[in-house]
Amino acid sequence: MIKFCNKCGSKVTSAYPPDEDRERLVCQSCGFVHYENPKMVVGCIPVWKDEILLVRRAIEPRLGKWTLPAGYLENGETVADGARRETTEEAGAETGELIPYGLYNLTSVNQVYMMFRTDLLHTDFRGGTESLEVKLFKESDIPWDEMAFKVIRVCLERFLADRSRGEYPFHTDDITFVKRS
Amino acid sequence: MIKFCNKCGSKVTSAYPPDEDRERLVCQSCGFVHYENPKMVVGCIPVWKDEILLVRRAIEPRLGKWTLPAGYLENGETVADGARRETTEEAGAETGELIPYGLYNLTSVNQVYMMFRTDLLHTDFRGGTESLEVKLFKESDIPWDEMAFKVIRVCLERFLADRSRGEYPFHTDDITFVKRS
Repeated sequence: MIKFCNKCGSKVTSAYPPDEDRERLVCQSCGFVHYENPKMVVGCIPVWKDEILLVRRAIEPRLGKWTLPAGYLENGETVADGARRETTEEAGAETGELIPYGLYNLTSVNQVYMMFRTDLLHTDFRGGTESLEVKLFKESDIPWDEMAFKVIRVCLERFLADRSRGEYPFHTDDITFVKRS
Repeated sequence: MIKFCNKCGSKVTSAYPPDEDRERLVCQSCGFVHYENPKMVVGCIPVWKDEILLVRRAIEPRLGKWTLPAGYLENGETVADGARRETTEEAGAETGELIPYGLYNLTSVNQVYMMFRTDLLHTDFRGGTESLEVKLFKESDIPWDEMAFKVIRVCLERFLADRSRGEYPFHTDDITFVKRS
């Protein structure tokens, strides 16, 4: 949450900038407008024969749960480069061509996931500092009850359905969350 | 460019946070790490019969040049919602289903464009405050020398090639810039 101005260090306040129809955080002193926008998360579905590579998280949130390698896109990298980097960092895995597979809107947390399909080049993988474990799973062994994130579960479910049909059309999905009472 | 901390207003400095392999802007006082990530730009290729809707920019950068309706994705909206909003704001145009068409990496400016194909519902469009003009163009009339942005030119060129083949596969492209000396 932005409380102070990036440019001059003064306090910001919520206000309508000229010619804009939505409130922004504007500096009370220098007038600088602080735009906040969704962040991209990029990742892979790494495949070896009929198995899928998952990583078990060594960090919060969802420590100990399973997921696909993915993380925030960094400045200066393409979405594919970012997805490949995350797969190297989290799974120590070398990947072939990255094929765009799906885009997921997580509007409640201001994230957009872009996921790629890819084949592992070999099975010489190992976890990095952010992973407790890295493992190949057959469809029947996927730990659905131990998945870290809904977006990854949705992505995997669709991937397996597509694989059984032999077609992988690019798609977008909206991931919504039911608030716990 | 971030000079002061969002959280406490103190000065930031470039440093390696614990467990990270790249420099971030870190607050010298409270230690808050300021992550900077690429922003998404979302937009449409609005089509009416064999014509494409372009808008002429009323704002900098590239004032007076032609482009497709597109703009920054806002927090809380899906990529399709954002693309539709921009098309309404900049072209006053009502659009049908938005079909994911292409993703463009602009690493040198830390932007990722996501463009959709869509049909106009009718031709009752008109420019907003950010557009000097809104107009339908046949392929032969597109003002290639007066286009505002390379990414839009690349997107349009590919769209026209795809249209002549009758197939619109989802694709990604890297948009690079030659530095002017």
